[in-house]
Amino acid sequence: MTQISQLGEFGLIHRLTDKLKPHNVSTEKSIGDDAAVLSMHNKRTLVTTDLLLEGIHFNLEYVPLKHLGYKAAVVNISDICAMNATPTQLLVSLGISKRFSVENIEELYSGIRLACERYGVDIVGGDTCSSMTGLTISITCIGEAKKGDIVYRNGAKENDLICVTGNLGSAYLGLQLLERERIVMQANPEGTPAFEGKEYLLQRQLKPEARLDIVEKLRKADIHPTAMMDISDGLSSELLHICTQSGVGCAVYEDKLPIDYEAAVLAEEMNLNIVTCALNGGEDYELLFTIPLSDYEKVIPLTFDKDDISIIGHITKAEYGTRMIARGGEEITLRAQGWDMGNN
Amino acid sequence: MTQISQLGEFGLIHRLTDKLKPHNVSTEKSIGDDAAVLSMHNKRTLVTTDLLLEGIHFNLEYVPLKHLGYKAAVVNISDICAMNATPTQLLVSLGISKRFSVENIEELYSGIRLACERYGVDIVGGDTCSSMTGLTISITCIGEAKKGDIVYRNGAKENDLICVTGNLGSAYLGLQLLERERIVMQANPEGTPAFEGKEYLLQRQLKPEARLDIVEKLRKADIHPTAMMDISDGLSSELLHICTQSGVGCAVYEDKLPIDYEAAVLAEEMNLNIVTCALNGGEDYELLFTIPLSDYEKVIPLTFDKDDISIIGHITKAEYGTRMIARGGEEITLRAQGWDMGNN
Repeated sequence: MTQISQLGEFGLIHRLTDKLKPHNVSTEKSIGDDAAVLSMHNKRTLVTTDLLLEGIHFNLEYVPLKHLGYKAAVVNISDICAMNATPTQLLVSLGISKRFSVENIEELYSGIRLACERYGVDIVGGDTCSSMTGLTISITCIGEAKKGDIVYRNGAKENDLICVTGNLGSAYLGLQLLERERIVMQANPEGTPAFEGKEYLLQRQLKPEARLDIVEKLRKADIHPTAMMDISDGLSSELLHICTQSGVGCAVYEDKLPIDYEAAVLAEEMNLNIVTCALNGGEDYELLFTIPLSDYEKVIPLTFDKDDISIIGHITKAEYGTRMIARGGEEITLRAQGWDMGNN
Repeated sequence: MTQISQLGEFGLIHRLTDKLKPHNVSTEKSIGDDAAVLSMHNKRTLVTTDLLLEGIHFNLEYVPLKHLGYKAAVVNISDICAMNATPTQLLVSLGISKRFSVENIEELYSGIRLACERYGVDIVGGDTCSSMTGLTISITCIGEAKKGDIVYRNGAKENDLICVTGNLGSAYLGLQLLERERIVMQANPEGTPAFEGKEYLLQRQLKPEARLDIVEKLRKADIHPTAMMDISDGLSSELLHICTQSGVGCAVYEDKLPIDYEAAVLAEEMNLNIVTCALNGGEDYELLFTIPLSDYEKVIPLTFDKDDISIIGHITKAEYGTRMIARGGEEITLRAQGWDMGNN
């Protein structure tokens, strides 16, 4: 194990960023100066940032550092995708306590780099310093898009179709599983965690993906969403954002919510309501968007693969409220519970 | 005092960012979506980020929250100025422990907003979350410049003049003063700190400014620096960066180093070597840059005001090393001591 003090700040940065090669022509100047320089030409520049703190956003008891790095990058890349844009650059700031060795931080960084490779994103800057306690990760992601391609949260119109990608609630159930097994392991350190058959849920929690593929598929299909965001706090919370900002209401159908069977089985096993998990469980990083009813024909081919798009409802006048129509036909008002469930 | 939990994340963000009005036409979409949208047209986009952690970068025993916010913004704005560019947007992420009330965070944010007003910068995004302990501030600053105006660290050429703005070592001495009085006050809480006549040094430490004025003056004077950076870790350290990246050496003259008289008096009083403070004391956020010898005539008018520019030496061939010529004529090799002095 190498102490970080042996390398110093500049030595550590050099070790982490030495072999980075840019993927994007827009990356004119990367790490090594006071600022990175980007050349977006006629496109728009998009910027988003996220702060991740140990003990609040992640628990290193069950999250491997490489996964943590991957997820920290993906969460930001997902925000750029949620604007219907292409992620291009990333800045990574780390606050590191004495508990971490150089190898630990390389492990974390290798996850960040893996995500950047996967999504064609260049690491162009950041800041590295010591911290008093715990690990702090602050990531800023830059993206680009043509002005006309960008999708905000405020464009949903009456009769638009409400779509989500992939499935919902799996990441939340993955977290419940990790928590359960952590407690079991504390009581019996000799045992092995009961993860068999639930690998997919773990992956959804530990190694989420950003839906850049959907951004590209929508473009190819010539579908321009009217409103879009990614689902980090839970479907209900995000739908309410779109409805509030667009000045509309919504009706989503319980039986249309895409739910993975592993998630349904675990919810049953843990005595959790799977629909509540799908509505309020966060961190799925799927895309939620609305499209004009006239694009119905175009979107149908994208609903064939269950990992692609599901149509879950439609936008209504604001006065009809934000509703879920349950299987039995009763109407339930959607509420934001992301914050209370601790998915911030 | 209002507990942050009473407002929740969105309530707090709303309260902090409610009345922000953009200054820059490049700010197309600010806070309220997955990412901010910037329109830089034919200009280049510059990005820099800094992470500030309580107990490492600041001590709230003697740094008022409003000053801390101001400085956190200025440090990043300074990095954009150091590229010879214009700062335009800022993203602010805060990790907040239970110790802080809503009013505390408003105080911090008011300092950030004040700096943004002063420098014409728009706050366009960020992230706010709770932390286990202490305050975490992560700021990303965006700027713009024409491609040809951008100045990197690697362009210094033999015979170029080495210039610095303002004076050096004052911020470091301000910190020594605060530390000294903190210890005195601990021993005698009834006393008052001995700050009289030293307000300027405190201001340099607590409320530094970015030298955007110099960027503008250089532009007006039609001077295009060959290399530039801001002095955050100390003159020696930064000069070494420029020399290494440009593949050159340097000679700076001890008697040309701009030193404020209050700083000199306090150094004497505290038995510190003022030249060492000027060379290695960090956080002055002045600009260090090199200009072609042929621009000598143009720069002279900018050296009349002592707060503007001082010519402190010249660039040499790499084989002559990185030297300071002392008053007595002896040559001293410059060393980077920023890290060891704890100015990171």
